[in-house]
Amino acid sequence: MKKFMDEEFLLSSKTAQNLYENYAKTLPSIDFHSHVSAQEIYENRRFNNLTEAWLEHDHYKWRIMRARGAGEGLITAFDKPSLRRVNWKTNSRFGEADYEHEKLSKARFEAFAAALPYAMGNPVYHFSHLELKRYFDCDLIINEENAEAINNICNEKLKDMPVREIIKRSNVAALCTTDDPCDDLYYHLKLKEEGYPVKVLPSFRPDKAYNIEKDGWRKYIDKLSEISGINIDCVQKLKYALKKRIDFFAENGCKASDHGADALFEGIADDETAEIIFQKAYKSEKISDSEANLFRKNIMVSLCRKYSELDWVNEIHVGVKRNVNSRKFTELGADTGFDVINPLPSLTGLFDLFNTLEKEKSLPKTIIFSANSGDNALINTLAGSFQAENSYGKIVQGAAWWFNDTEGGIRKQLTDMAEYSVLGNFVGMLTDSRSFLSYTRHEYFRRILCDTIGTWVDEGRYPNDEKFLGEFIRNLCFYNAKNFFNF
Amino acid sequence: MKKFMDEEFLLSSKTAQNLYENYAKTLPSIDFHSHVSAQEIYENRRFNNLTEAWLEHDHYKWRIMRARGAGEGLITAFDKPSLRRVNWKTNSRFGEADYEHEKLSKARFEAFAAALPYAMGNPVYHFSHLELKRYFDCDLIINEENAEAINNICNEKLKDMPVREIIKRSNVAALCTTDDPCDDLYYHLKLKEEGYPVKVLPSFRPDKAYNIEKDGWRKYIDKLSEISGINIDCVQKLKYALKKRIDFFAENGCKASDHGADALFEGIADDETAEIIFQKAYKSEKISDSEANLFRKNIMVSLCRKYSELDWVNEIHVGVKRNVNSRKFTELGADTGFDVINPLPSLTGLFDLFNTLEKEKSLPKTIIFSANSGDNALINTLAGSFQAENSYGKIVQGAAWWFNDTEGGIRKQLTDMAEYSVLGNFVGMLTDSRSFLSYTRHEYFRRILCDTIGTWVDEGRYPNDEKFLGEFIRNLCFYNAKNFFNF
Amino acid sequence: MKKFMDEEFLLSSKTAQNLYENYAKTLPSIDFHSHVSAQEIYENRRFNNLTEAWLEHDHYKWRIMRARGAGEGLITAFDKPSLRRVNWKTNSRFGEADYEHEKLSKARFEAFAAALPYAMGNPVYHFSHLELKRYFDCDLIINEENAEAINNICNEKLKDMPVREIIKRSNVAALCTTDDPCDDLYYHLKLKEEGYPVKVLPSFRPDKAYNIEKDGWRKYIDKLSEISGINIDCVQKLKYALKKRIDFFAENGCKASDHGADALFEGIADDETAEIIFQKAYKSEKISDSEANLFRKNIMVSLCRKYSELDWVNEIHVGVKRNVNSRKFTELGADTGFDVINPLPSLTGLFDLFNTLEKEKSLPKTIIFSANSGDNALINTLAGSFQAENSYGKIVQGAAWWFNDTEGGIRKQLTDMAEYSVLGNFVGMLTDSRSFLSYTRHEYFRRILCDTIGTWVDEGRYPNDEKFLGEFIRNLCFYNAKNFFNF
Repeated sequence: MKKFMDEEFLLSSKTAQNLYENYAKTLPSIDFHSHVSAQEIYENRRFNNLTEAWLEHDHYKWRIMRARGAGEGLITAFDKPSLRRVNWKTNSRFGEADYEHEKLSKARFEAFAAALPYAMGNPVYHFSHLELKRYFDCDLIINEENAEAINNICNEKLKDMPVREIIKRSNVAALCTTDDPCDDLYYHLKLKEEGYPVKVLPSFRPDKAYNIEKDGWRKYIDKLSEISGINIDCVQKLKYALKKRIDFFAENGCKASDHGADALFEGIADDETAEIIFQKAYKSEKISDSEANLFRKNIMVSLCRKYSELDWVNEIHVGVKRNVNSRKFTELGADTGFDVINPLPSLTGLFDLFNTLEKEKSLPKTIIFSANSGDNALINTLAGSFQAENSYGKIVQGAAWWFNDTEGGIRKQLTDMAEYSVLGNFVGMLTDSRSFLSYTRHEYFRRILCDTIGTWVDEGRYPNDEKFLGEFIRNLCFYNAKNFFNF
Repeated sequence: MKKFMDEEFLLSSKTAQNLYENYAKTLPSIDFHSHVSAQEIYENRRFNNLTEAWLEHDHYKWRIMRARGAGEGLITAFDKPSLRRVNWKTNSRFGEADYEHEKLSKARFEAFAAALPYAMGNPVYHFSHLELKRYFDCDLIINEENAEAINNICNEKLKDMPVREIIKRSNVAALCTTDDPCDDLYYHLKLKEEGYPVKVLPSFRPDKAYNIEKDGWRKYIDKLSEISGINIDCVQKLKYALKKRIDFFAENGCKASDHGADALFEGIADDETAEIIFQKAYKSEKISDSEANLFRKNIMVSLCRKYSELDWVNEIHVGVKRNVNSRKFTELGADTGFDVINPLPSLTGLFDLFNTLEKEKSLPKTIIFSANSGDNALINTLAGSFQAENSYGKIVQGAAWWFNDTEGGIRKQLTDMAEYSVLGNFVGMLTDSRSFLSYTRHEYFRRILCDTIGTWVDEGRYPNDEKFLGEFIRNLCFYNAKNFFNF
Repeated sequence: MKKFMDEEFLLSSKTAQNLYENYAKTLPSIDFHSHVSAQEIYENRRFNNLTEAWLEHDHYKWRIMRARGAGEGLITAFDKPSLRRVNWKTNSRFGEADYEHEKLSKARFEAFAAALPYAMGNPVYHFSHLELKRYFDCDLIINEENAEAINNICNEKLKDMPVREIIKRSNVAALCTTDDPCDDLYYHLKLKEEGYPVKVLPSFRPDKAYNIEKDGWRKYIDKLSEISGINIDCVQKLKYALKKRIDFFAENGCKASDHGADALFEGIADDETAEIIFQKAYKSEKISDSEANLFRKNIMVSLCRKYSELDWVNEIHVGVKRNVNSRKFTELGADTGFDVINPLPSLTGLFDLFNTLEKEKSLPKTIIFSANSGDNALINTLAGSFQAENSYGKIVQGAAWWFNDTEGGIRKQLTDMAEYSVLGNFVGMLTDSRSFLSYTRHEYFRRILCDTIGTWVDEGRYPNDEKFLGEFIRNLCFYNAKNFFNF
């Protein structure tokens, strides 16, 4: 029996251990898609306690707590806003022995610790223990009994571990945030000015501009008008405004865009139709799902042309149905853990998008993520149909995403990409996280990667050429992303 | 090489063997969803032979026989009704040496024995041998050569093994039958009166009341009218009649309902629309699939409110296309082995159903089963979006169902539930069977469960805390179901 | 660590090795579905070099090269038609030291050799090395460094290895080509006349006759009119012409048809509707996808009746979206590697097709292939609903197809067929290839088959009855196909 999560965790053979130790372990990481805050990096936020660091944003953990019957008062604690940290710079409550706050933090952590043991086999179980080990040098098992001890150890160590210290220990070479076209990128600029050694780059995520069927769209257009200085009253002006923002992002180091779309279907509006749909929504009339899809795809074509010109990488995230629980959405808002894998196929919506762009030679480099791991084979065969000369992959599948960021999901994505495409082109891991402690997911991924390849070699499925294997692994851990994005 | 199906069958490590032997093996089971007959339990049916016990109802076995070219005369034997057992109490044919009947039974068993070896890797292969070992202490391999010997051994032992003896040996603590709202639950009552030590509880399955597009619906409404004493001529009266029957079931120990729906799609009829569809069908006009879905969902909402009031557990079975072979349906009727996994996604039909109920806080505890194992991840992420305070899971995925009740299917369901949800909430196994000999499927499940968890522990993926592991396994084998259903 | 692809490649236990060595290895193969050219067999084509043998038609290899950035000039080389071999009999360029041609061949092979190492885990990696070992006795690893040496070894050996020599070494007992109804089967006849010891049989593939929505349909009808001698101006005449061609194929040894359909949906046109759609297309009006499906299914019903009369086996290939990259389709044409797994379910289109035929007892023996391995469970449960007396399977799932012809895909198909159906009915492997060097895929399949079964036996999941196991494996490798097709 192996010890729980020891040095050889997930590495089932000497070959795998050797590959990990000598080629993967010490490489820096490029976290090319995340949701961390550039402001928090710039201001070097310090966490008052582990509850804050772990439970402030992490809806993966919230779901586990909810599944074990914890109330929202212990999960999101949105019912007690006065007790939540608002500004970590001015708020030194913890030091001031704000007893109420400390008590709630403790109770919330205990509720999480009590729930976690039942999430046997869940990635959050591994992620949490990995973070405990790597950042806090703490080997305790997370459960109700150990909750207090863990809390004490971690809260003490967090005093000397503000955000920049965490990033430094995480060996991050570059990271991308996810930013709205309206964002002024103030903190990205400040970090650059300051000469912060880690590249902190924005990503351009224009979902709000093309999700025309959603409630806030009309208001968003006004905001974008103001920021871009373009009075957006037609599709052409919307596109022009977005392109101006893309130029602004590009000037500030942006090399990637990101398109989230709950679902994409066949069909692209021509410009005339897009204009009609725009005018309907502009007058706040209701937009059908079908119209929304047609409009969205028209805008996407236009955006992709621009990305292609700038040699950006476009990331596409599909296959999610968001906010399926209206009551909770009303109470807690978006991104609080009430999203579902969408069983309707979204990939059909990519066929005509890519084909249209490819016809006019303006298809940008693209990474596809689907929340439905059943799509892996389809994504990889689709990618194989749109390659480009002198490029190691033009369209590639992204790492196992969201719900699939599990041991099984990662192994499946690696194997599916290998079997249906060319694994050597894989651009590797990303955290997609709001948490600065989640960089250990790169370690998790690298262990699984080395184990997968090590097993193939051990079983005689691939030659034992250590030099090549080492280079291959280093590419998948670091260099492929660096080259694909031009970081 | 391990011996064929020995004591360590499916248990690949010492850890797994220990968990099975010490925590899972001797626990009683709760068979919370089955199709056995309360009458046969009450009357303590005795089987004349193994053919009767194995081939009378089991369309899994029939499919294997058909795949190997056996004729219906040897499978369903519906062409020779005179030779089939009709009433096992008055019919002592076997004792009277009814030669024709004995000959046919023997031939049918031989046809099954000849077919089975070719079903290598099929669960029926394991189930059949497990039943042979556990109930008949017979280690013979089922094949043409051994058919006669097996027949002799088992038929002899069946003399002393009527239904109640089988249930006793199976260590069943409680079992639920599946019952139509029109059922008078006569035998359930008799068993209760008698003080039969095993809980035999009804489940409320109102499919016929809402499957408005089906041929027998109109006639069914008349039957329900008669039994409920409500003259059902509108939707409101249908709902009222169903609620009366629910109350009757509840009075008689029922704690669960069961909704079978070949396919559920988006959309719920409002009451007005439901009434229009009802009146159409009431006049025996044709109902489209879309109307049927809208109507069905309207009724389901109403039923679920009632279940929620009573704190019942609602089971939902989706993803099947039944009776795809019309010729065989005409010849042999339903439930004879001509059903297929439905490739159309049914889960979209659950989104608005759950959301509607959740909005008004009347979502009952729910177990979802899909015949399509590709839905596992979706079901678990859906379940995670509808949890409740102070409940270990509000919606949970059910055990691998029907076609997926295989070794691979069970492992996949366990792993998928673990990775996408919280395995500790799993309510465990059920037979879903018409056969009293099928309780060994609980053993099959428990072995796979212990092997899965034992492997995780052995590989350092979960701490080796035997006390916790033991409790965890006992919950999944027994206590979670007991608590979820309030048995 | 096992050596790379040694004698025990893919055989993880002594049991598996024994089964492979003693029962599978030396059996001949029946390649019942392929795209090799009867003409090339008759004329005993000789390949000038490995580039020609490997890269002339193989879009699997092309995709790998494209993924690694190779230009079309090195892949399809369609831009330099003057350098491509046109007629291998009259063209002895290589011998004449056509320097340009030799140089390009070398460069193309080098580009392939440089790309392949990055396709770790891809079946092409295994296929290529297996072909190198078996046909050329060459154990070199394919990479940039070894490219020249491999080229020299193989090109030398290819001098003595014309097509018939390759077939002989491959131990092929029978092979089926894929032929259009308009084909005169000239070379099949010549081979038969000559008494060529390998059965080279045609398959009847009438896609062009029923793919009424496609550009070339109208022209094809004229061609078929000419060849059949029927002036096809209505559906009935189209059917009559096709039946005449079927009779012609049957007279010339054909025992199988093959239906490719990008996607099949619910619905079958009655004859009147089919006639209306026919007339529309006949006047070159545009046909919708829905009309095309209705028409296609009407024709299929008619064809299947005829196959059933002749006791042919009908193969159905679904689940592909072809030519998704229009630019490449325009440049390079069909079958050049720009096809994708179709995420829309095609199996619903088979339900009513089979049911209609079964009702009138004219369902032919059928093998279903889907490009979507997620369909495996569905196909097997569908097959189980349409069996026939005295037949070991009436409908069976075919081997893992196209994109799924991978180690994982083959294991999954075997396991899925075993769990959801009766593995003993499986008709086994086929190459589906245009390349005469691809027969080693039968070896690849057999190794995985023996490993799968050997593992089951080793783990106590199936009795260790070597006689039965040996027979079982021999059936799946050879005899089941022989019997199913009546070869």
